[in-house]
Amino acid sequence: MCELLAMSANVPTDICFSFSGLMQRGGNTGPHKDGWGITFYEGKGCRSFKDPLPSAHSPIAKLVTEYPIKSEAVICHIRQANSGGICLENTHPFTRQMWGKNWTYAHNGQLKGYANELPIKFHLPIGTTDSEHAFCWILDQLHIQFAENEPTTKVLYQFIASLSEKINKLGVFNLIISNGENLFAYCSTKLHWITRRAPFGEASLIDAEMVVDFHKETTANDIVTVIATQPLTDDETWQKMSVGQWQLFCLGESIASGQTEAEIKTPANNTN
Amino acid sequence: MCELLAMSANVPTDICFSFSGLMQRGGNTGPHKDGWGITFYEGKGCRSFKDPLPSAHSPIAKLVTEYPIKSEAVICHIRQANSGGICLENTHPFTRQMWGKNWTYAHNGQLKGYANELPIKFHLPIGTTDSEHAFCWILDQLHIQFAENEPTTKVLYQFIASLSEKINKLGVFNLIISNGENLFAYCSTKLHWITRRAPFGEASLIDAEMVVDFHKETTANDIVTVIATQPLTDDETWQKMSVGQWQLFCLGESIASGQTEAEIKTPANNTN
Repeated sequence: MCELLAMSANVPTDICFSFSGLMQRGGNTGPHKDGWGITFYEGKGCRSFKDPLPSAHSPIAKLVTEYPIKSEAVICHIRQANSGGICLENTHPFTRQMWGKNWTYAHNGQLKGYANELPIKFHLPIGTTDSEHAFCWILDQLHIQFAENEPTTKVLYQFIASLSEKINKLGVFNLIISNGENLFAYCSTKLHWITRRAPFGEASLIDAEMVVDFHKETTANDIVTVIATQPLTDDETWQKMSVGQWQLFCLGESIASGQTEAEIKTPANNTN
Repeated sequence: MCELLAMSANVPTDICFSFSGLMQRGGNTGPHKDGWGITFYEGKGCRSFKDPLPSAHSPIAKLVTEYPIKSEAVICHIRQANSGGICLENTHPFTRQMWGKNWTYAHNGQLKGYANELPIKFHLPIGTTDSEHAFCWILDQLHIQFAENEPTTKVLYQFIASLSEKINKLGVFNLIISNGENLFAYCSTKLHWITRRAPFGEASLIDAEMVVDFHKETTANDIVTVIATQPLTDDETWQKMSVGQWQLFCLGESIASGQTEAEIKTPANNTN
């Protein structure tokens, strides 16, 4: 399977520490060697770094660990290819414009029968993954449902949760999606999150010899949530999301959550 | 004014040499210090590196000069801000999807009255530049003219030339746009290009102490065209485009060109 990583923060914060751990799972401590990508929001703008090479050996990934880009919302993905070849156009995250905002999306899982079950018309995929197809379908559904009128946050993410539930019926659909203001996570099989706030302490990465003292790196008002497929540190308590659960984050805080109907998948389904 | 740089090649080729020259003009040998960006196509996929910082001092720009990404189409821009603040969402190039392809766009110049003269409906800007607005208008016009049916190359770029002519009436509109297969350049005031092919020789950068012997870097079949606002080397013959002229490149070759009506702009107009 792939792995997801995301961050929501109330002040521009770098993700160097968490990414330093995750990147090792792309060909070193983990098998997700078929490309990686990370998207940083800075205001309404965003920029992505992507490589179809393993993150553990990518000079671009090394730069991302060393160059602290401060952001309030980040989405990252390391890939173990299943649907679609190993190439740049199949490398997550995917970003498209809607309602004058950048929407960024990354998926962990695998879908079957999506071409028939998720017909698309307006937003066409560029690559050949089930993941990008599902993203285009979500954007099409948003367009069909709301046209030019961006709905309220509550209506929007309730609707995205209902779309996630529908997609999840086709396989495994762990999702992170953001418009830069809010960050939405849907758990199909596996997703964890942690909110760090004062009093801050130390944390140690599982995948690299690295300890950070957040107390030294932050101010007392900072609130930062990190979401990841699997916990990245071994000395903090991560919250495990339940199957079918969704969480909405804004400025580092969980601001809404809900539970959709979803069957528990057997591990055999969870192969991407 | 800003500066543009682009490349079209018949084999995946890196742009490290040309970019090493251009990046110096972003805060060192030139005043274009308000951000920079570069987009590389690799197959149907593309990836961008962007920074609202001066390219001459950007660690990301340094990586781009040292990490040879091989591409058949590249678009690059260094910015001296005029319309829109210095921030990531106003940093060129801009990329959007149409007909299942990534379309990438960069503009040098400045437009007046574009909000009224170039009304947009479907493709909304994220930032606040005249440049992104004009890009959105082009995409809207393509959508209105051709809907879901991608036209032939000839029809498509004749139409884009006519759109460029119309936009150019609003000020200065030097344009590079590409869908990864073709690369289109429109000259409003200043644009140069050079096609390198066997027998290859040496070339020296104007902006950095750097000489390359293309004979050692290439094979006899390589054809590479570089397009730039101003020549990047001082020992080669660059072709100067005329006012209102457009050129279409594919796999390193000029495959079509044309002349639109355009008045010669006074230097005073050319302030971005």
